[in-house]
Amino acid sequence: MSVNFRLPGPTPLPPQVITALGREMIPHRGPAFRALYSETLELAREIHRTDGDVLTWAATGSAGWEVAVVNLLSPGDPVLVAVNGNFGERFASVADRLGIDVRRLDVPWGEAVQPGQLRLALEQHRDVKAVLLVHNETSTGVTNPLRDLAATVRDHGALVVVDAVSGAGALPLEVDAWGIDFAFSGSQKAWMCPPGLLIVAAGARAWAAHQKSTYPRFFWDMREAKKWADQGMTPTTPPLSMIYAFRAALGMIAHEGVEQVWERHRQLGLMTRAGIASAGLRLFAQEGFESNSVTAFEPPPNVTAAQFLELLRRDYGVEAQGGQAHLSDRLIRVGHMGWVHEPEMRQAVAAVVDVAARLSSVGGAEPDLLQPLQARTGTA
Amino acid sequence: MSVNFRLPGPTPLPPQVITALGREMIPHRGPAFRALYSETLELAREIHRTDGDVLTWAATGSAGWEVAVVNLLSPGDPVLVAVNGNFGERFASVADRLGIDVRRLDVPWGEAVQPGQLRLALEQHRDVKAVLLVHNETSTGVTNPLRDLAATVRDHGALVVVDAVSGAGALPLEVDAWGIDFAFSGSQKAWMCPPGLLIVAAGARAWAAHQKSTYPRFFWDMREAKKWADQGMTPTTPPLSMIYAFRAALGMIAHEGVEQVWERHRQLGLMTRAGIASAGLRLFAQEGFESNSVTAFEPPPNVTAAQFLELLRRDYGVEAQGGQAHLSDRLIRVGHMGWVHEPEMRQAVAAVVDVAARLSSVGGAEPDLLQPLQARTGTA
Repeated sequence: MSVNFRLPGPTPLPPQVITALGREMIPHRGPAFRALYSETLELAREIHRTDGDVLTWAATGSAGWEVAVVNLLSPGDPVLVAVNGNFGERFASVADRLGIDVRRLDVPWGEAVQPGQLRLALEQHRDVKAVLLVHNETSTGVTNPLRDLAATVRDHGALVVVDAVSGAGALPLEVDAWGIDFAFSGSQKAWMCPPGLLIVAAGARAWAAHQKSTYPRFFWDMREAKKWADQGMTPTTPPLSMIYAFRAALGMIAHEGVEQVWERHRQLGLMTRAGIASAGLRLFAQEGFESNSVTAFEPPPNVTAAQFLELLRRDYGVEAQGGQAHLSDRLIRVGHMGWVHEPEMRQAVAAVVDVAARLSSVGGAEPDLLQPLQARTGTA
Repeated sequence: MSVNFRLPGPTPLPPQVITALGREMIPHRGPAFRALYSETLELAREIHRTDGDVLTWAATGSAGWEVAVVNLLSPGDPVLVAVNGNFGERFASVADRLGIDVRRLDVPWGEAVQPGQLRLALEQHRDVKAVLLVHNETSTGVTNPLRDLAATVRDHGALVVVDAVSGAGALPLEVDAWGIDFAFSGSQKAWMCPPGLLIVAAGARAWAAHQKSTYPRFFWDMREAKKWADQGMTPTTPPLSMIYAFRAALGMIAHEGVEQVWERHRQLGLMTRAGIASAGLRLFAQEGFESNSVTAFEPPPNVTAAQFLELLRRDYGVEAQGGQAHLSDRLIRVGHMGWVHEPEMRQAVAAVVDVAARLSSVGGAEPDLLQPLQARTGTA
């Protein structure tokens, strides 16, 4: 069975990336690698819309929370975290675990963080050194108004630190123009690669903060990473296959044009939401702030997310995902980021619509419906 | 030109690993991944000869130094590091950077650390909580007598922590029988994979030490990794392609038989050293402690390592490596670990012998010799 792989990450690999993954090893201190890595970082800078630095680590996106904290802050530093979903929650939790004085702006899950709310929170917490934001809340399918949030933080003067894991490469992100000091993402989302590469964009104010940071660190040290990156290298052995893959993916994005990539995601988001809503299913994200890289919706009454997902998987080959944390069985999430185009999304949406219709025709997930087609039609 | 890739890491990728790298993504919380990861860890346990745990991280081998320190120790803990090469030096430096009270046993580079030396050092530093050892010094081509060193540390009572990056999978390593508490390695050495996966074996005493460790940590936390590994998963998104590759490589090792793999490396080491010595080149490692995964030798008089390496590369397609730190231009290192067999090593050794003969015939690296063959023979 061919799977329509619609997780909100990892995402499908394009053939160019698969080919790149299979390339032979090269010396990581030699001229071929230095040229490759330099052009990879240059492309990544263009796509992040920054004249600052882009650095990578052999790691996954989740390491970004720790890399941000240990490079930009010191134990006990007061920091504001805007939490409107599971990834904001985890960002706060990692900061707390690392000894940061975490202040929270809690916004109901499914809603976006509003600049006005953030302004008020910053008035209450004038001493914070950084604000930790999530670009796109993968857990709820909400895109926060990052440009306006960043501007609000800049007015206050704190550092703008962004988890852009499911946003970068799919949704508009203008690191320099929006005044973002530090943004990180993972290779397995809109970058169309397997998991295993952490990508960080850092601007001048991040470097200034780094100077003052007192966390002990070795592997995550961004000054060390930059020192080597400026010569086209990494401080320790780089994850070569992942860099081959990332270079190939960035080439595809540059070839399509990053603004066209954003537009493609916008169109796919619109189409996905229209289709799902037309089936009478409730979209979870606040109107006007729906994510164009992942759509979250509620299963019909009397149906669990697990039942809905099982039908999607078994009868349509569509691999989607449930919710997270307290929403684990109350949400279904469909990814549409990275290597994705209209045909496969139409198929995925049609499958969702069909499952919803079948379930509503029997008023819920009847045991009979949850049996394979063959058993139901008696042809087995 | 087909390259005979003889770095001491990264190492060549076998076709099975290349195929595995190109496999499609799967859900990392689903049954297929759980089965894959569970069997990967089970195979890795067998090959490490341990009934303890094996865990992996998206990271490179160098992260192992940090992972060991932040999981097993607390800031200010006294620790003894045995240093007889650049990797011991770096292990000590990372521990120092992370606030450990580092005591050193320095042994001349090129020599092995002897159990007697270690015993004396432990008598001088009775308070150390752990001894950090290097299994195989990639920088000098020396294999330390790990079994005896581990026994010496056990007599003292400290934790046995081993950088096995260029040893594991190539050289005898019996984690349980030798009393090793914590050993780490990187995918790009004898594991025949690209860089990007850190592999850790941890026994009961490591877990007891972990309980007392006060380092703040998130991504590197081994308790969290174990909690998920016991269910066939990782705490955060795993580097799927690297795990596919590692699984394929472990399957190859299990199929050949790990003792046969060790024997193959032993034979390749013997052959490599015999060939190089026959050309009148001086082997760097102390006799009796030569590594069977990497051979280090000195270039002829009046020749730099860079000149020797350039001839190997340009005229024979053999990609070897120079020395490290103060030996950078005084050593040549040839890797023979992982996916390597007699034919390609014979070719590599023949090339080394030929380069040495050409250089000795002119009494050094004459400018003429360093020109391409065509220019020298006037046929350009």
